[in-house]
Amino acid sequence: MENTEPTLAPKDDPKLNPEWIESTLDDLKDLIGSKADGFILNIAKDLHPSDIAELSRHLNRDERTYLFNLLEPDVVSETLLELNPPMQSEYLAQADTARISEIVKEMDSDDAADFISGLKEEVAEKILNSIDKEDSAEVRELLLYEEDTAGGIMAKEFVAVSKELTVDQAIQKIRRRTEEVDEIYNVFAIDDSEVLNGVVPLQKLLLARPGVKVQHIMNEDVISVSTSIDQEKVAKLFKKYDLISIPVVDDEKKLVGRITIDDIVDVIEDEASEDVQKIAGITDIDIQETSILRITGARLPWLAISFVGEIVSGFLMSQFQTSLTRAIYIVFFVPLVMAIGGNVGNQSAIVIIRGLTTGEIGMLETGRRMRKELWVALLLGFSLALAIFLISGLWFHDFRLGFVIALALVVVVINAALTGTILPFVLKRLDIDPAIATSPLITTSNDILGVLIYFGMITIYLTQFS
Amino acid sequence: MENTEPTLAPKDDPKLNPEWIESTLDDLKDLIGSKADGFILNIAKDLHPSDIAELSRHLNRDERTYLFNLLEPDVVSETLLELNPPMQSEYLAQADTARISEIVKEMDSDDAADFISGLKEEVAEKILNSIDKEDSAEVRELLLYEEDTAGGIMAKEFVAVSKELTVDQAIQKIRRRTEEVDEIYNVFAIDDSEVLNGVVPLQKLLLARPGVKVQHIMNEDVISVSTSIDQEKVAKLFKKYDLISIPVVDDEKKLVGRITIDDIVDVIEDEASEDVQKIAGITDIDIQETSILRITGARLPWLAISFVGEIVSGFLMSQFQTSLTRAIYIVFFVPLVMAIGGNVGNQSAIVIIRGLTTGEIGMLETGRRMRKELWVALLLGFSLALAIFLISGLWFHDFRLGFVIALALVVVVINAALTGTILPFVLKRLDIDPAIATSPLITTSNDILGVLIYFGMITIYLTQFS
Repeated sequence: MENTEPTLAPKDDPKLNPEWIESTLDDLKDLIGSKADGFILNIAKDLHPSDIAELSRHLNRDERTYLFNLLEPDVVSETLLELNPPMQSEYLAQADTARISEIVKEMDSDDAADFISGLKEEVAEKILNSIDKEDSAEVRELLLYEEDTAGGIMAKEFVAVSKELTVDQAIQKIRRRTEEVDEIYNVFAIDDSEVLNGVVPLQKLLLARPGVKVQHIMNEDVISVSTSIDQEKVAKLFKKYDLISIPVVDDEKKLVGRITIDDIVDVIEDEASEDVQKIAGITDIDIQETSILRITGARLPWLAISFVGEIVSGFLMSQFQTSLTRAIYIVFFVPLVMAIGGNVGNQSAIVIIRGLTTGEIGMLETGRRMRKELWVALLLGFSLALAIFLISGLWFHDFRLGFVIALALVVVVINAALTGTILPFVLKRLDIDPAIATSPLITTSNDILGVLIYFGMITIYLTQFS
Repeated sequence: MENTEPTLAPKDDPKLNPEWIESTLDDLKDLIGSKADGFILNIAKDLHPSDIAELSRHLNRDERTYLFNLLEPDVVSETLLELNPPMQSEYLAQADTARISEIVKEMDSDDAADFISGLKEEVAEKILNSIDKEDSAEVRELLLYEEDTAGGIMAKEFVAVSKELTVDQAIQKIRRRTEEVDEIYNVFAIDDSEVLNGVVPLQKLLLARPGVKVQHIMNEDVISVSTSIDQEKVAKLFKKYDLISIPVVDDEKKLVGRITIDDIVDVIEDEASEDVQKIAGITDIDIQETSILRITGARLPWLAISFVGEIVSGFLMSQFQTSLTRAIYIVFFVPLVMAIGGNVGNQSAIVIIRGLTTGEIGMLETGRRMRKELWVALLLGFSLALAIFLISGLWFHDFRLGFVIALALVVVVINAALTGTILPFVLKRLDIDPAIATSPLITTSNDILGVLIYFGMITIYLTQFS
């Protein structure tokens, strides 16, 4: 495929260009410095809250606070939701309760719940008491659910109509809800006891005859989730069935909320981030965290695991000191054996982990995948073994030792590939995130095993066969 | 947070359970074995194509072909789209052109274009000639765009109405398009020259008075992209503005297609997979590939880079042989120095790479991030250095050498952290995927540098100061 330079068409978003950010940022900083409120508001009024958020990330704390205090509560509300929790707290710490409740009032119930859960309990209580009774009841309900479940990410902003209504009556009902619910894609049909009975896409409602009853046009085969189901499972359903929104029901199948695709996009992205972060032992928080001490505190434990493991590797090496003094040059391949073992293990593990995450690999495939990875490992191992046999043979003028080193490499490669393949499946079975199969804990154990295999095999050769 | 067992409510999708797959699979295999077509169709009729795809992944080749030949073209069409390219080709290789064109006819234009681009040219031509002229013209147009651009992922199934039409007339227009366009969320308003002028969410259309003109209710501030823009930039816009669909325009701002969120979810997932796959030097294809030889061929180059790099490490170590014979035990910390360097580098790099990918870190933050990572590296480095000073001092009864080893570790840690931080920014500036900063190429170079720093510093100490 040819690589063409992407050109920005006139209608393309100029705000994707770093140049736009830099120049607007300069203007904004100057205007804030000279407290030119009118001009600042003039810039802000043409901007989407996401763009204001983007810009404000590059302002310092005081500039950011000044800007936010100037903006209308609805704009601040959307802007804050685009920022990370530390920046949210920074603004909230200096805002009074009246301002915070103005901001929270503008939020959808799911965002409000997330937002309030980050506040100190007494502030949260004050805010909840200051907003609309109905709204605060909704938020209080949402706060009861676990964060990572369907209940934890659903919103109370949905449109439910009795299946007995006509299309015309249903549209009237939507009209009354439209203030509150920004985005409606599907209307949920319920019975008298609020039990979910079906779903009607807006498109179908628009094209149906006004007099026909909802129950005659609704899709009864509606896919729903219960409040306690894990958010990753919800994301799987969205991907599998290409959903835009999904209704959430309680244990009596009553409709209690809806989840929309934009929240799921965040779940999918977090999930993917987790996979890559597990490799280095960091967390999502790390990107957003501003305290050096807290970042260090979060990263150090993983390095400590690695540290202890590699001290063990070193200690094991020291046990083979007799072999080392007989053939010091075997030590020159230690970096190679460790790196190749680590890379092969990661290759196998990452293929399985991503496959399990995206659903391309099913749990039933364990055996098939193991055979496949074993064959690949054999081919990879023997290719590299041939190379190291020749290199070490020529380098040390000892092809017999070269053969043993090559054999050790094959064993290390097969061990790494099998561990990398089996471990994610086992972890998944145990309901543990398979991604930890690439974490420092596992790679360090593999290093220890690698050192043992390599020096062990060479020592056996040196003591028994030469 | 307490970890509650997610319970499946009665309406939850039982097909997420491996047990469901196993038992249905057993039935299906038996029925295919005894050619009980009626029963097979009876099972299939209650299943979503995604579920049929899931099941068929566990069938063998002949069973899969038998099943697909039995199903209606529209079901096969959707099922095949859920399967990976090798499985698609496997079915197409044995199907005749008539069957293939029945299947392609059922697809949306974007899927049809992807599908046909995977066929042999003469088959593709035959299929294109056998389907509806209008459809084939659309597919031919889509085939002209680069695969990874907005043009390459857009579909021709959208609803455009003249902004001069009334709401009532617009609804009539939608009615005529509804056969062809399954999912309508937004209606695009164009002028006489087909230039995009605005967007009307379906919800707004449903609630507007029938006589009002589209141009009076449309949102003129419509976010659009040009055909040549990179799909990752399109994904960024979807995430930034929480979009459900986006119109695609050509250089004259004429509306030529639309992209919906379900296609973007795939882009986001692929992008995330790429990040993690770069670490081990594997590709997305790897998960789906069935040929052992091709998998080995794809993975071997990365291992070869690592192999050559670590041979260089070994060669460099051999240059320090005098130091090694004077103090053989310094070699016991080689695994530690390499592993810690690798982990610290990955921690810094992954934080920056994920931040750049998700947009949480902007290009303007280079300096700030570097200072932050440097401080973290200093804290991490000195903590680990203290530990290794004590361990090596006590182990070898030589605290002066222990001090040098500790100092070398600090330098290795700082070098790794800075490389890990700066490289992603530099790569991004050069328009290269920053994720390759964690690839074997870079980690191996860091290993070489680590060996040089460690042995270099110790040798200077041994020759100059002891």
